[in-house]
Amino acid sequence: MYDLLIQNTHVLHVSHGSEIRVLRDHDIAIQANRISAVEPVGTIQPSDARQIIQADGKLAMPGLINTHSHVPMVIFRGLAEDVSLEKWFNEYMWPLESNLQEEDVYWGMLLGLAEMIEAGVTSVADHYFYMDQAARAVQEAGTRAALGWVVFGNQGQAMLDRTTQFIERWQGAAGGRITAWLAPHAPYTCDDDFLSASAQRARDLGVGIHIHVAETAAQTQASLEKRGITPIRVLEETGVLERPTILAHAIGATPSDIQLLAERPAGVAHAPKTYLKLAMGSAPVVAFREAGVPVGLATDGAVSNNTLDIWESMRLMAMTQKQAQASPEMMTIAQVLHIATRSSARVVGLADQIGAVEPGYLADLILVDMGGAHVQPLHSITASLIYATRASDVQTVIVDGKVIMRDRKLLTLNKEEIIQQVSQAMRRLARRVPSQRIQVYNP
Amino acid sequence: MYDLLIQNTHVLHVSHGSEIRVLRDHDIAIQANRISAVEPVGTIQPSDARQIIQADGKLAMPGLINTHSHVPMVIFRGLAEDVSLEKWFNEYMWPLESNLQEEDVYWGMLLGLAEMIEAGVTSVADHYFYMDQAARAVQEAGTRAALGWVVFGNQGQAMLDRTTQFIERWQGAAGGRITAWLAPHAPYTCDDDFLSASAQRARDLGVGIHIHVAETAAQTQASLEKRGITPIRVLEETGVLERPTILAHAIGATPSDIQLLAERPAGVAHAPKTYLKLAMGSAPVVAFREAGVPVGLATDGAVSNNTLDIWESMRLMAMTQKQAQASPEMMTIAQVLHIATRSSARVVGLADQIGAVEPGYLADLILVDMGGAHVQPLHSITASLIYATRASDVQTVIVDGKVIMRDRKLLTLNKEEIIQQVSQAMRRLARRVPSQRIQVYNP
Repeated sequence: MYDLLIQNTHVLHVSHGSEIRVLRDHDIAIQANRISAVEPVGTIQPSDARQIIQADGKLAMPGLINTHSHVPMVIFRGLAEDVSLEKWFNEYMWPLESNLQEEDVYWGMLLGLAEMIEAGVTSVADHYFYMDQAARAVQEAGTRAALGWVVFGNQGQAMLDRTTQFIERWQGAAGGRITAWLAPHAPYTCDDDFLSASAQRARDLGVGIHIHVAETAAQTQASLEKRGITPIRVLEETGVLERPTILAHAIGATPSDIQLLAERPAGVAHAPKTYLKLAMGSAPVVAFREAGVPVGLATDGAVSNNTLDIWESMRLMAMTQKQAQASPEMMTIAQVLHIATRSSARVVGLADQIGAVEPGYLADLILVDMGGAHVQPLHSITASLIYATRASDVQTVIVDGKVIMRDRKLLTLNKEEIIQQVSQAMRRLARRVPSQRIQVYNP
Repeated sequence: MYDLLIQNTHVLHVSHGSEIRVLRDHDIAIQANRISAVEPVGTIQPSDARQIIQADGKLAMPGLINTHSHVPMVIFRGLAEDVSLEKWFNEYMWPLESNLQEEDVYWGMLLGLAEMIEAGVTSVADHYFYMDQAARAVQEAGTRAALGWVVFGNQGQAMLDRTTQFIERWQGAAGGRITAWLAPHAPYTCDDDFLSASAQRARDLGVGIHIHVAETAAQTQASLEKRGITPIRVLEETGVLERPTILAHAIGATPSDIQLLAERPAGVAHAPKTYLKLAMGSAPVVAFREAGVPVGLATDGAVSNNTLDIWESMRLMAMTQKQAQASPEMMTIAQVLHIATRSSARVVGLADQIGAVEPGYLADLILVDMGGAHVQPLHSITASLIYATRASDVQTVIVDGKVIMRDRKLLTLNKEEIIQQVSQAMRRLARRVPSQRIQVYNP
């Protein structure tokens, strides 16, 4: 007996080696929280299923994965526009975050999760403050998350202990949907002793580390000038890279950094919209791939991205890499879909668990309407997914075997209440005193 | 007595000098095909209106303008991916277009218009074949269009005559919604004699010219090597630039080209998604603006763009220009919204007629829902419009005073029939024999 049967769907299949096929007219059977069968229509008996979803020719694909975000920052959306990276940190983001209260993280996380579910994003690696509140929100929303409580080096050992307690509380919670990570902010806000202590703590706890590194080429240059090694080499020397790591951005990775990362359990989170908006430069995605360093799609926070839309990240990565390589033949459809699925799963530590619609994988999948005027006629389903499909085409979202959005209606969250809760705090959140900031950006 | 009253809306106001205001809680009154009043809620009596639309706090803004497209190419969507520009033309686009039949243009145009109306695009400057069919489709859809029948130089005088007859049939048709333009393809496919004859014909007819030029820096370089002048200088010497012109792309415009264009009645159509996807380089948008050359947003055709979504063009222009200038402070929200509205209107020859929600302007406007989880909380309406709003947030579309989409339902077009008509021709349209092409790309 199956718990859920999705009937009459096309299925996107991405192989480990980045080969793409669309399995037309298939059914998908789910038992508990895993996919148990993907078979041509007619093979699985409907009477063997407790619940049936008629997909009517929609496309089934793995739920999208956001490998680096600061989801609760949606509460500050639109407050830092047309400013330099230095001003973005020192005059906007870090002063704004001095307004942050614990409850803001809860409601902001819920709002961001609502946005992501509506866009077919089923997993997120999040990196923020007051993460018990974020975990509570993930538990309610029904999504999957890799959560890290950000620590700055100047917060010291006490804060590291506090985030350790967070990890102990939430590791494996929500039926395994939550994993917990250590999250020192970046090499330029954490000194070597603090990074070494974080690495030691991660070893003790058996967890990974989610950290910003080499966000721009200028950061790499500054590190070379100040101390003679790159920020990624700092992570190596402090032991961080011995742990599974999510490296946010790594735009300033040098060729030797890339060779190093290829030999470590590291993945790179790539957030191209932030890079364009803040003119941060182009990340060496092609070089990472060629060296065997996994790359995952990300949005970063909504104060630089403005949304949490992984479809847009996918499209922008494809296009900006073609541009950076001055070759439209680079970063093919197959490579892009591999990055969006299996490679992103690997970055968040869930290789071979999520990122594929195949028997044995966790049942995190979405149904996408391909009937819109903006994708028709459908000469190429895969080209459409990257270059034409919109977040609003996602119809149904399943995580861990549970339907959490059906025909665009959220089933676990009360969107109106969430928006109302966030809106009533807007005036307080938007107060900005540049001298009151939680950190100073001076890499 | 007003024909239509839109009640309780916020109104985006963009001044001639690129200053932005949002007029909160206003009503908009429309008489026949023009806006007659924009007043604070309560000023206009509802009893003075024949029809009322409750906007419920949505944002009213000018209908979006697509200043360069080949709309019927939607029928080939997704058929030319991950290929070089040379292959795109010679092995894909021009062989595919040898399949084109007159009826394909009619159904393709209807499909593209449906997509654009759903995305809030109310005007398009279109550049394609069999344009009587395109005009027929525009007439039915109720949108506004500047239509040009593409001619290649080797088709000779007879084809120029044929497109002249098209202009005579359709200039000012559909109650003035259609304007007709001459459309020689490009300097690299039309020799100087043909361009001169086109310019003379445009003078005789009193019409403008819509043409591709300097699509890449390589085209400019090739022209300099072959004949010692730039493609834009070719347009000058053949008299084309004496006419109002829509110049598609102009990525390869040199500083002296830009100075020349500033003294001519020329506008540039900017289609950033195509430039990224085909790695064509970055257009000098900032330099055009500084010189006073109007720039308008465009999608180009769906075989390079994959959609006809001007929201995406707006966002990509903003972001790619920030990147190209290596400054996130460039291409501000106000400048981007000016380009999307007044400047795009000027490019298609309708300055001070469309592109503003103000008394006296033609009533081409859209109502945008700002309540989605992906734009909330709404700290900045204008940031949201550029960086977060999706085509699917457009709720209601009014062109020439007529409501053509209401609450996302198309009122003039039968989308299901259109998709069915296009779909049944898919196999024939997708046939591709590279030796059978309508032109050869060798600039």
